[in-house]
Amino acid sequence: MKRSTFLLIGVTTLAGAVVFTATTSRQASAQEAAPIFVKKIPPGYRDWKVVSVAHEAGELNDIRAVLGNDIAIKAYREGKLPFPEGAIVGRIAWSYVASEENNKSFGRDQSFVAGSPTDSYLQFMVKDSKKYAATGGWGYSSFDKDGKPTNEAAMKTCFPCHQKVTDRDFIFTRYAP
Amino acid sequence: MKRSTFLLIGVTTLAGAVVFTATTSRQASAQEAAPIFVKKIPPGYRDWKVVSVAHEAGELNDIRAVLGNDIAIKAYREGKLPFPEGAIVGRIAWSYVASEENNKSFGRDQSFVAGSPTDSYLQFMVKDSKKYAATGGWGYSSFDKDGKPTNEAAMKTCFPCHQKVTDRDFIFTRYAP
Repeated sequence: MKRSTFLLIGVTTLAGAVVFTATTSRQASAQEAAPIFVKKIPPGYRDWKVVSVAHEAGELNDIRAVLGNDIAIKAYREGKLPFPEGAIVGRIAWSYVASEENNKSFGRDQSFVAGSPTDSYLQFMVKDSKKYAATGGWGYSSFDKDGKPTNEAAMKTCFPCHQKVTDRDFIFTRYAP
Repeated sequence: MKRSTFLLIGVTTLAGAVVFTATTSRQASAQEAAPIFVKKIPPGYRDWKVVSVAHEAGELNDIRAVLGNDIAIKAYREGKLPFPEGAIVGRIAWSYVASEENNKSFGRDQSFVAGSPTDSYLQFMVKDSKKYAATGGWGYSSFDKDGKPTNEAAMKTCFPCHQKVTDRDFIFTRYAP
């Protein structure tokens, strides 16, 4: 009896340890690995409606359109926060180029237009509160001009920066009228 | 008889003069008056797809989105010129504003965003080869932030400038990938 009791305790302890390890590792993977990064470009994004436009100078040196899928646009227009499940906010960044042909027509140097796709051509934030709970309910993604995802080391900078606008549900861009 | 012949010639001449005057005046009105300017904002334009984005510096000092209705976007994507009947190309211009909130988050001055609507907030070119035959088949329109059409004197500068890109069917903006 003594021996079998010891065995039972041993098995129970082992089972507990396995459960504990599994839970911990599930949490760690939720916070650190794949789930915070979206690896697929949302289909049809180029047909989405405009949220706003912007120019990022300096190293980025791009001109960009921020677009939203229908769920995101509806929430933007109604001024509702947080964004509902399924909302996707995307941005397309083109190189910022002085337009010689426009300037020639206008007779003055004033026109800057969208050139070729940049190294971080496409970026999306996908709202899924459960899946991306560790990063404020948003999954982040970034793709170069060939549709290749940006390396994960660089992607780890997304959420820390977007946390600066937690009060706007982590979204920097405001809707342009 | 002499008298009635004279009268007949007189009437014929008068009739000819009336016909001549009417034709001339019809041509003049096609070229100068209302038909070249579109007075109504196309419904639903804010939902249209993006053609491209741009920044006009100098006096305009705006950042803009160029949009197209479905007919225009299809033609752009297929690279077909001239644009088909019913195509409308629009642009929304917002004031070009340095974003202090973005710059603060990024830790550097680099971000320029869309501010309030400009004095020439909305502009559209509407393709109707018959109606706007006198101006290359495009009707021009411009509206301020309250939806009020720009005065006709200013509107007369549209077509002469767009004639500089006759080989692109009078459209400056190229489609951004």
